[in-house]
Amino acid sequence: MTELFYLPPALGLAGLVIAMFIYFMIKKVPVTNEAISKIADQIHLGAMVFMHREYKMLFIFALVLAVALYFSLGTNTTLAFVVGAVCSALAGYIGMFTATKANVRTTQAAHDQGAAAALSIAFMGGSIMGLCVASMGLLGLGSLYWFFGSDPATAHAIHGFGMGASSVALFSRVGGGIFTKSADVGADLVGKIEAGIPEDDPRNPGVIADNVGDNVGDVAGMGSDIFESYCGSMIATIAIAATMTVSALGSRESLMFLPLALASAGLICSVLGILLVRAMSAKKPDTALRAGTMSAALLFIIVAHFVIQYVEISNNVWWSVLTGAVGGIIIGLVTEYYTASAPIRKIAKSGETGPATVMITGLSVGMQSVVIPVLTICAIIYISTSLSGLYGVGIAAVGMLATVGITMAIDAYGPVADNAGGIAEMGGLGKETRAITDSLDELGNTTAAIGKGFAIGAAALAALAIIAAFVETMSLHYENFTLHLGDPEVLTGLFIGGLLPFLIASITMTAVGDAAFEMIHEIRRQFREIKGLMEGTAQPDTARCVDIATTAALKKMILPGVLAVAVPPVVGFGIGPHALGGMLGGALLGCVLLALMMANAGGAWDNAKKYVEKGNFGGKGSSVHAATVVGDTVGDPFKDTSGPAMNILINVMAIVSLVIAPLL
Amino acid sequence: MTELFYLPPALGLAGLVIAMFIYFMIKKVPVTNEAISKIADQIHLGAMVFMHREYKMLFIFALVLAVALYFSLGTNTTLAFVVGAVCSALAGYIGMFTATKANVRTTQAAHDQGAAAALSIAFMGGSIMGLCVASMGLLGLGSLYWFFGSDPATAHAIHGFGMGASSVALFSRVGGGIFTKSADVGADLVGKIEAGIPEDDPRNPGVIADNVGDNVGDVAGMGSDIFESYCGSMIATIAIAATMTVSALGSRESLMFLPLALASAGLICSVLGILLVRAMSAKKPDTALRAGTMSAALLFIIVAHFVIQYVEISNNVWWSVLTGAVGGIIIGLVTEYYTASAPIRKIAKSGETGPATVMITGLSVGMQSVVIPVLTICAIIYISTSLSGLYGVGIAAVGMLATVGITMAIDAYGPVADNAGGIAEMGGLGKETRAITDSLDELGNTTAAIGKGFAIGAAALAALAIIAAFVETMSLHYENFTLHLGDPEVLTGLFIGGLLPFLIASITMTAVGDAAFEMIHEIRRQFREIKGLMEGTAQPDTARCVDIATTAALKKMILPGVLAVAVPPVVGFGIGPHALGGMLGGALLGCVLLALMMANAGGAWDNAKKYVEKGNFGGKGSSVHAATVVGDTVGDPFKDTSGPAMNILINVMAIVSLVIAPLL
Repeated sequence: MTELFYLPPALGLAGLVIAMFIYFMIKKVPVTNEAISKIADQIHLGAMVFMHREYKMLFIFALVLAVALYFSLGTNTTLAFVVGAVCSALAGYIGMFTATKANVRTTQAAHDQGAAAALSIAFMGGSIMGLCVASMGLLGLGSLYWFFGSDPATAHAIHGFGMGASSVALFSRVGGGIFTKSADVGADLVGKIEAGIPEDDPRNPGVIADNVGDNVGDVAGMGSDIFESYCGSMIATIAIAATMTVSALGSRESLMFLPLALASAGLICSVLGILLVRAMSAKKPDTALRAGTMSAALLFIIVAHFVIQYVEISNNVWWSVLTGAVGGIIIGLVTEYYTASAPIRKIAKSGETGPATVMITGLSVGMQSVVIPVLTICAIIYISTSLSGLYGVGIAAVGMLATVGITMAIDAYGPVADNAGGIAEMGGLGKETRAITDSLDELGNTTAAIGKGFAIGAAALAALAIIAAFVETMSLHYENFTLHLGDPEVLTGLFIGGLLPFLIASITMTAVGDAAFEMIHEIRRQFREIKGLMEGTAQPDTARCVDIATTAALKKMILPGVLAVAVPPVVGFGIGPHALGGMLGGALLGCVLLALMMANAGGAWDNAKKYVEKGNFGGKGSSVHAATVVGDTVGDPFKDTSGPAMNILINVMAIVSLVIAPLL
Repeated sequence: MTELFYLPPALGLAGLVIAMFIYFMIKKVPVTNEAISKIADQIHLGAMVFMHREYKMLFIFALVLAVALYFSLGTNTTLAFVVGAVCSALAGYIGMFTATKANVRTTQAAHDQGAAAALSIAFMGGSIMGLCVASMGLLGLGSLYWFFGSDPATAHAIHGFGMGASSVALFSRVGGGIFTKSADVGADLVGKIEAGIPEDDPRNPGVIADNVGDNVGDVAGMGSDIFESYCGSMIATIAIAATMTVSALGSRESLMFLPLALASAGLICSVLGILLVRAMSAKKPDTALRAGTMSAALLFIIVAHFVIQYVEISNNVWWSVLTGAVGGIIIGLVTEYYTASAPIRKIAKSGETGPATVMITGLSVGMQSVVIPVLTICAIIYISTSLSGLYGVGIAAVGMLATVGITMAIDAYGPVADNAGGIAEMGGLGKETRAITDSLDELGNTTAAIGKGFAIGAAALAALAIIAAFVETMSLHYENFTLHLGDPEVLTGLFIGGLLPFLIASITMTAVGDAAFEMIHEIRRQFREIKGLMEGTAQPDTARCVDIATTAALKKMILPGVLAVAVPPVVGFGIGPHALGGMLGGALLGCVLLALMMANAGGAWDNAKKYVEKGNFGGKGSSVHAATVVGDTVGDPFKDTSGPAMNILINVMAIVSLVIAPLL
């Protein structure tokens, strides 16, 4: 087996080379229009300023954690932690850097060459993010595994990689989420409602910040979120396998290596899927994207069968992989239903009796939407464990996430297309270009909704696998370590775990509200004080708005971040390991439910508003439209800040618990 | 010990006699004003029509369950089930019957004699409900215990009592909740917003239905809810004690009888507390109510000490009782904070930027409000079990609920005062009377909020005790029955349990939305078609509105009702007892979190609107007011339909599981 260990990092390197190649293809497209070039530079600059300031804070936070890890768990874990943090940060940075190059070129292509070329560039922009996530994961984790992860005695150290990735994800996702929504809500409330100017109007001082937000929240934030789940599922599966001295499924060596082998296969399938999308992009865009994902998933399932046979592992494990891959697709499709079909028409109709009924209907749609995804997760747990024990849950998560290269590419395509539309509007490129970018954006909204559902399912399964690994690790220390629900300690932990998602959701929603409030005041001030702004003869101070969103996001992400990292050791050392186990169970349940509810309610409100804007129930400017705008505004922090924060919260808490397990 | 078994039923009978005595005191107050007498008759009649139709449906449902129980668990369980259902139904019926007599007399007293007399009558009206709940519980459960409950071999049959009580509670709470809010939302949206007439204006066809709703939802519904928790906590504690063959805490005989003994002591303390409120009602009303509750609680804690010494039980058990009693007070106070102080001012302020920010702030307040109550529940679990094992959780719940006679009295006082205000407005009794009823109503809102928090805490602890009893019962059948979170079956159950509260909340919110929609159309139709209605020369068809709300409520309560009763056997027999145990854990967690979040967010929105109406942020008619009205409308189904349904859901599922435990 050892002779294959070089493969995952080598494939990771190859993936990065392909990403670089795509980057040069994008860069080749010339930006001839000076107006949009200037706007794009502002967005790019704003995003980079945010990233640099965010990473500075992250560096201090990571340094504190690294020192703590060094003195408690030694060099290897600390090294793994640093590598994990660097890989995650790099993936986010590269992905966002290229996304802010691809957006303007998408606009230019839409203007010069039409829809097919624009789709192609936007998708290539997203592909770099997808490939970076997969490649950085394989390169970083694969290298660590090669060096010391494959030996069960030292395997524990690679958990540090997950913790590093999670710490970065925590700040990227929460900080990015607060940034993007405070800018969005602020710009919309003053611009659209008070000043009565269209979305993305260049006179609005908050509009650059809004477009920066799409990149730092939806590209970098989402990327680090998926990166964490991707690596977390592999780490957990390796950890579970490491505790299995004898197994009917196969040799421990094979079982430990399998996650990396499957992820390597998944990367190859993803690259082929990306090529397919490019080849088909001249046809119907949604068909192209769907064909790419589905072919990659199908191909992966077939290849996985051969990989599993090759490393002499029981076929049951393949069925577990299949369960995860199929489950991911089901959850994505359910998300699509709740944020597209009948539910959004129902929400739009409820706008006839005002914003209150829009809220009630939307919340009830969101709550209902948890049912099938959670039952799917139950089915995955039940089937995969009956086939392959706890190892099955881990490998099912790996199966769901293996083709992350293409799912993430399609996900990141959305904000690139959204930005392209914004740039077209701000640059005044005319109706025709705008129509093309609008159609790309609309498709992006659907793919983003599916992507969010998929991200939640994947995060849930990854966290569950990590928790399983935690329980297995504890069993090595304590004889008969069971988390019995009738044990008061476990029960207390369960309740503490359950309240945390509510607390974090509350904190992040308040953060968006407060930051948006500051933003609103600043935009109002500029409209009031800058003479000639409304007439278009003076320039708005957009940098000031970017700065406000940046400062607010960085300040407000500290409390949820510290809570997520600090609560597991506090509960674990303060009450005990059983309470910690219970807490992870309660937090997992609460996080999955709230994440699904918030993401789907938010998506449904957003699309209900868009449905009305297309001319239904009175169209733009009607009272129904005003009612659905209220829904959309509430949905914004739901779907883009608090909801996604849930994925990270549970994964951070799970991986921190796994890392400190030997100390408990 | 056996010589004391007659005491609880005897005290129950005595409590009923006192309630009857209070009823005659209320009836003695003459209603001299013909206008208000007629209005009160309409409300009374509407409430009775609803009750009769509801109980008819309930009868069929109970019959089906009784037949199923008879063939699976025999005569005793079936008998207990029937007694439980009848006791609960009677308590609700009597309480509501008298509440609809007390409301008009409160109005009359406010008009003739002033605030002190009005408070006294409203509180007497509530006291009957409180005494009925406590007395019916002691009479019914005490008698069954006397006949066959005290023998551990046959004790299992009394679980049927809890199932009977829960089935009635399920329909009363859910049906009543849908009725009250569809009428409220419908009447308000058309009356206040479209027609521009004040609340409780007699020209509004929906206003009688709205007042009926206060009685069927807040009096009968709340009463059956608390009745279920009250009896559930005693049944669970008896069940846990029955499984303890040897215990350091005391003899099994004493431990089994203790819950009934404590509840008996609690009833006496409640009666004394009620007398104190009456004696003090000439002074400040809020001081009188607070002094009554606190003295009753304090006295109970002292008496409990002697009771526990008398039956020779360890003092540790007394500390567990104390934990429960104090915990209940803390949860009530936290609820008061979140629905009164700084949070509602923050929500009102957020109205400056429109309804969307009111929603975001309110949801975030609701989510934050779960933290301390849940930590309090954790503390109760942790402390009471370290003192007295699982028995401690049960007896803590009994301690929290023992003085239910007075807590429920204060709770039911609210809707009586609310109704009195409505009757004063509809009868045109003038500003002075209205000012008195308004002040009583305001106090009622605060007590109702505290009561809701208390009800959630009590329901949570009662459910937990029942679940503990379930686990202990299963341990008798299975050797080493543990609900290990790492067991896929338990985990699957946990997820299924977690999604149920979201599903039921979604169903009940949709039900309110749909029923309100029908109501809105009917009220609009009457304003359009009945000539002279707006001018006050023609009468509205109020009975039609009551009928619409009744039909809608009865139709929409079936699905959640059937789900709650059917899911435990489906999971228990379909997947297995471990999955059922996990499901109860997940449902408990989800129900407590959602119940707290919804009740507190709803209460906070309601009071934020009232705060603006007092002249803050522009007062009535301002844009801030309009924004807070949206919050209040969303909060209505939150706090009065879906939130309270959570209490019942978990208790029904827990008791059904306990009843079917021997069959698993």
